[in-house]
Amino acid sequence: MAQKRYLFTPGPTPVPPQVLAALAEPVLHHRAPDFREVYARVLGRLQDVHRTESEVLLFTCSGTGAFESAIVNLCSPGERVLAVSAGSFGERWAAMARTYGCEVEELRYSWGETPTADDLRAKLGAIDPVSLVFLVHSETSTGVVADVQSLAAVAKDAGALAVVDAVSSLGAVPLEMDDWGLDVVIAGSQKALMAPPGLATAAVSAAAWEQVERSTLPSFYLDWQRTRKAQEKLDSAFTPAVSLIVALDVALGLLLEDGLESAFERHVRLGRACRAGIKAMGLELFSPDEDRAAVVTAARMPEGIDSSDLTLALRERHGVTIAGGQGELKNLIFRIGHIGWYDEFDIATALNAVELVLGELGAPIERGVAASRALEVYAEGTPV
Amino acid sequence: MAQKRYLFTPGPTPVPPQVLAALAEPVLHHRAPDFREVYARVLGRLQDVHRTESEVLLFTCSGTGAFESAIVNLCSPGERVLAVSAGSFGERWAAMARTYGCEVEELRYSWGETPTADDLRAKLGAIDPVSLVFLVHSETSTGVVADVQSLAAVAKDAGALAVVDAVSSLGAVPLEMDDWGLDVVIAGSQKALMAPPGLATAAVSAAAWEQVERSTLPSFYLDWQRTRKAQEKLDSAFTPAVSLIVALDVALGLLLEDGLESAFERHVRLGRACRAGIKAMGLELFSPDEDRAAVVTAARMPEGIDSSDLTLALRERHGVTIAGGQGELKNLIFRIGHIGWYDEFDIATALNAVELVLGELGAPIERGVAASRALEVYAEGTPV
Repeated sequence: MAQKRYLFTPGPTPVPPQVLAALAEPVLHHRAPDFREVYARVLGRLQDVHRTESEVLLFTCSGTGAFESAIVNLCSPGERVLAVSAGSFGERWAAMARTYGCEVEELRYSWGETPTADDLRAKLGAIDPVSLVFLVHSETSTGVVADVQSLAAVAKDAGALAVVDAVSSLGAVPLEMDDWGLDVVIAGSQKALMAPPGLATAAVSAAAWEQVERSTLPSFYLDWQRTRKAQEKLDSAFTPAVSLIVALDVALGLLLEDGLESAFERHVRLGRACRAGIKAMGLELFSPDEDRAAVVTAARMPEGIDSSDLTLALRERHGVTIAGGQGELKNLIFRIGHIGWYDEFDIATALNAVELVLGELGAPIERGVAASRALEVYAEGTPV
Repeated sequence: MAQKRYLFTPGPTPVPPQVLAALAEPVLHHRAPDFREVYARVLGRLQDVHRTESEVLLFTCSGTGAFESAIVNLCSPGERVLAVSAGSFGERWAAMARTYGCEVEELRYSWGETPTADDLRAKLGAIDPVSLVFLVHSETSTGVVADVQSLAAVAKDAGALAVVDAVSSLGAVPLEMDDWGLDVVIAGSQKALMAPPGLATAAVSAAAWEQVERSTLPSFYLDWQRTRKAQEKLDSAFTPAVSLIVALDVALGLLLEDGLESAFERHVRLGRACRAGIKAMGLELFSPDEDRAAVVTAARMPEGIDSSDLTLALRERHGVTIAGGQGELKNLIFRIGHIGWYDEFDIATALNAVELVLGELGAPIERGVAASRALEVYAEGTPV
């Protein structure tokens, strides 16, 4: 019999069966009335999830493509920008802005550190003005979720626009685009939005649209004005991934029916449970032990064992996919994603599987306590 | 009961149920071994469909995104290129190249004309050298399929690379990338490849890779070198639309199992049948009455009736989606796509529906003959 598969990575994440079923519906034409109805609903639901009145532009691409759209629509060659980085994705945005000829200042932390508003204020005070500050809400490579509200406020005080990577955070941890004054929020379909990968979004504030007027970098497929003009007529500039949009509609319906607050609370509890289980096993957390870090839990590998041995054995022998480390953390940590269509028994299964394989690999870990400790902590209920 | 729906547009096209079922499979992680197996097979099958030994780069985007990838990876600001255009897509590639600062020469025909090798030779003889010639194989806006083999030969004689838009032609009409010496071939998942929209490809020859070395335009998400490097390790540079790739694998399997020659023959017969039916109804063809035009059939509207009235009534009253005209042909023509998962009864249904609604709209057309004439012509069998 085919092995059961468990997807416990920080993206792609498990997709609910109702969403998978929607994917299998006959393909609609992107200009036909039955699709426009779905499209209008998706665009509205995306605004609800972002907590914004601004347009949310929908692209067929990965989250990286949508982040690139922010650079090419907001910048001109030589544009002065600041990237706040403390992991793989923050560094990617800095590299991408350089590729497009921006003059990139960096507030660069070690991987795993948590950016602070004070550091950002000091940095912005010490350099010539920048027009944009790039922030990562959830740094998927380390498990750190930054306090984007405070960071964005500092950026705005300095007269810069706040451009936020919320790819793995949107729908999992609180993000209030309008209340927090975020100018651009980038997200992807394959994380807490519970749909397959292939769609990504850019929500754009009025102030950001003014910056678009000043930008001179060329763009075509990722052009925001072309996309906005099309969306205003419930049209799309280019043939979109209609099946994924139909699926995203169902997924957003599930998320919003349950309520965003409920999703946020569930993710806090999942994060607490996962961290408690990791510690009960005797492992050391790499991601912060705090409620905000509710997207992905990173743990240090026991001395002398590479995380690639763990992830490989989990996949091949047990059908369980978790993530190793990226970049400089490649073999040093493993990561369990707990985003989207995920419950406490998934946490328990992930911990059971990790414990089993670490034992097989000869790690001196505590057996038989992680899962039950996680379930106990999850049951403690509503976070304060 | 929900109305039955018929998708008879030149893209998206109907998707076989086996492919829809594959879409509904649980989402795989893009770096897990079970996905890599599918990915390797898809990349190989794409080479088979292109009839090439060169890499076929796979992107999560529309065909336009993949065409843009050709421009940003092959060009530098001021690059001299020639665009051959005779419809919406040819003109789009010229506009796109201008957006990226290329110096664009145009061999521009009226919409609906067929580009010729002689015209191209004369044009290339009359202008300073260009490094690239952009060709459209199947101009979806008019139904014209160009003789890309001859056109590319002329481009190569002049020392230029041939960059071919084969978005709606690949898998429907013959295209021999290696034998014809095509340098870049762009295609999309949602036409004859029988998968939903959201994936697009760029097949790149050795000569084109040399041009990539000279190009200075920036790119990131659509960067060919990054994508090639990842694909060589069966990896992807960014999270791809895994569900669509799994579906494309099934669709390409169906196509190749039956054989490309069989698909080409079927499309020729479908085109013949559709044109015969249109003429039997007393309508005038807009697309050429020749075997090569086997992708989409365009017909002129009867005097005094807008094609938008026809397409709207077909959709709303009968659940049938065909295409109207684009751009300057907006209300003057209608288009029936017959690409991919399509048979002679689909042609008959499309013709029956058009005939019915044109009758309701008061057009003086011959009733009751189109479908049977189409089936007769289809049955005449193998084209010479």
